[in-house]
Amino acid sequence: MPYALVAYLEPIGSPGALGHEEAAHAHAAFLNLVRGIDPVLSERLHADNERKPFSVWMLAASDSRTRERRPALRLTLLDDSLFAPIVGSLLRDEATTLRLGPNRYRITELATHPSAHHLAGFGAYAELMDQTLAPGRLIVRFVSPTAFRSQDRDVLWPDPRLVWQSWVRTWNAHCEPDQRFGEAALLGEYVTGVTVRRHEVRTRRVRVSEGVFAGFTGVAEYDLARVPEPGRRWLAVLARFSFFSGTGRKTTMGLGQTRPSNLT
Amino acid sequence: MPYALVAYLEPIGSPGALGHEEAAHAHAAFLNLVRGIDPVLSERLHADNERKPFSVWMLAASDSRTRERRPALRLTLLDDSLFAPIVGSLLRDEATTLRLGPNRYRITELATHPSAHHLAGFGAYAELMDQTLAPGRLIVRFVSPTAFRSQDRDVLWPDPRLVWQSWVRTWNAHCEPDQRFGEAALLGEYVTGVTVRRHEVRTRRVRVSEGVFAGFTGVAEYDLARVPEPGRRWLAVLARFSFFSGTGRKTTMGLGQTRPSNLT
Repeated sequence: MPYALVAYLEPIGSPGALGHEEAAHAHAAFLNLVRGIDPVLSERLHADNERKPFSVWMLAASDSRTRERRPALRLTLLDDSLFAPIVGSLLRDEATTLRLGPNRYRITELATHPSAHHLAGFGAYAELMDQTLAPGRLIVRFVSPTAFRSQDRDVLWPDPRLVWQSWVRTWNAHCEPDQRFGEAALLGEYVTGVTVRRHEVRTRRVRVSEGVFAGFTGVAEYDLARVPEPGRRWLAVLARFSFFSGTGRKTTMGLGQTRPSNLT
Repeated sequence: MPYALVAYLEPIGSPGALGHEEAAHAHAAFLNLVRGIDPVLSERLHADNERKPFSVWMLAASDSRTRERRPALRLTLLDDSLFAPIVGSLLRDEATTLRLGPNRYRITELATHPSAHHLAGFGAYAELMDQTLAPGRLIVRFVSPTAFRSQDRDVLWPDPRLVWQSWVRTWNAHCEPDQRFGEAALLGEYVTGVTVRRHEVRTRRVRVSEGVFAGFTGVAEYDLARVPEPGRRWLAVLARFSFFSGTGRKTTMGLGQTRPSNLT
């Protein structure tokens, strides 16, 4: 089941302001934290895996729209087996010290439900499939820098084919086997009918542990009116899933954070 | 030789404000004007031709950055044989009445040189080739809504392949035969090395005579550093040409108006 958790951070000592460098450290901090909790799980997350089952993103340093002023991490988990050990440990005092660059933080509170934080939530894969209706249009916000790699090139715009391809690959990597959806069928039969109704995007660069990364942020509105009915519902299921999975490259580092709307 | 002319308009009577609808009429007004001047030329311009040798765009209604407050048309001509009859007639009193929707205008002045208007100018194809150096980066502003048609889809972002493909096709259609550049070589050997360094684009809709048209406006910066030297110069020649040709679809109606910079 995909989860989105928001962990509030309390500084230990008197740290400096949280900037983009600290945000870049969040991914490493999370992996260090997991290593302290569960070395076997840590090995699994470090293993070379194209579609890792988590993402970490610093909210306070990047999301100016949340009214919450406390620094917080948004953590998404795409795999049930991660939830119990990680959440259990985050809530135990001794394990919850995070080092972000030169600063140290304690996790004091964990929001797991949309009523506690609008970026928290959960929903089983089967629920996402059953409870999603087929809208005529989808609005997708790309909150942190998003990019695709296609034919040896970086693609820095919300091309429908690359957007849904990213979502369906992550979905198929983490859902139950009987919930998988054929990538070729999705792209060939359904995504070909998707048009971009409007967009407003710009490139942005962020520093991540491996260096500077370029992506786009902004909003795109997709028109599904020409897609046949079963396809529209599937396209919407995957858009809803993007709240948890993110979009495109380096989502484990919190890049490609995605907010779908116009969904039920 | 490509020309860009700015024709200042003086209202006859007391017309309403120039809005986007009037801008959409500029193309028809220009064709009507040419019909009055030279029926044979008019037939030629009307003939079904993928890459017509002109564009017309209403400046005052669309270009908020020019300090000039008088309404003006920007007219580009890509073919020497158009210049003499059209410019000669525009400067003769009796032929210079333009009807834009319900309003009528007289052309009172024609700027042909950058010193008279920053959007006017000219330069022979051979001059563009000889006098353009090879920059490491190119900045291109897409001023009026720009779109491409690729594989039966509208593409609403400044994809390097589609941008240079549009320019080289228009160049090849209007330059001297010995100045043509192979499209496949340009795209396959040179444009593959172009990367988008940054962009900031958004969709916009305009009403043209055939209905509502969606395109993007904004700016893109292309990095040519990985392109071998002869290719960089050719890419820059075509970017410089885009000042006259525009980019993408419906350039004759003034869409795809393009302002390259970072060029010598």
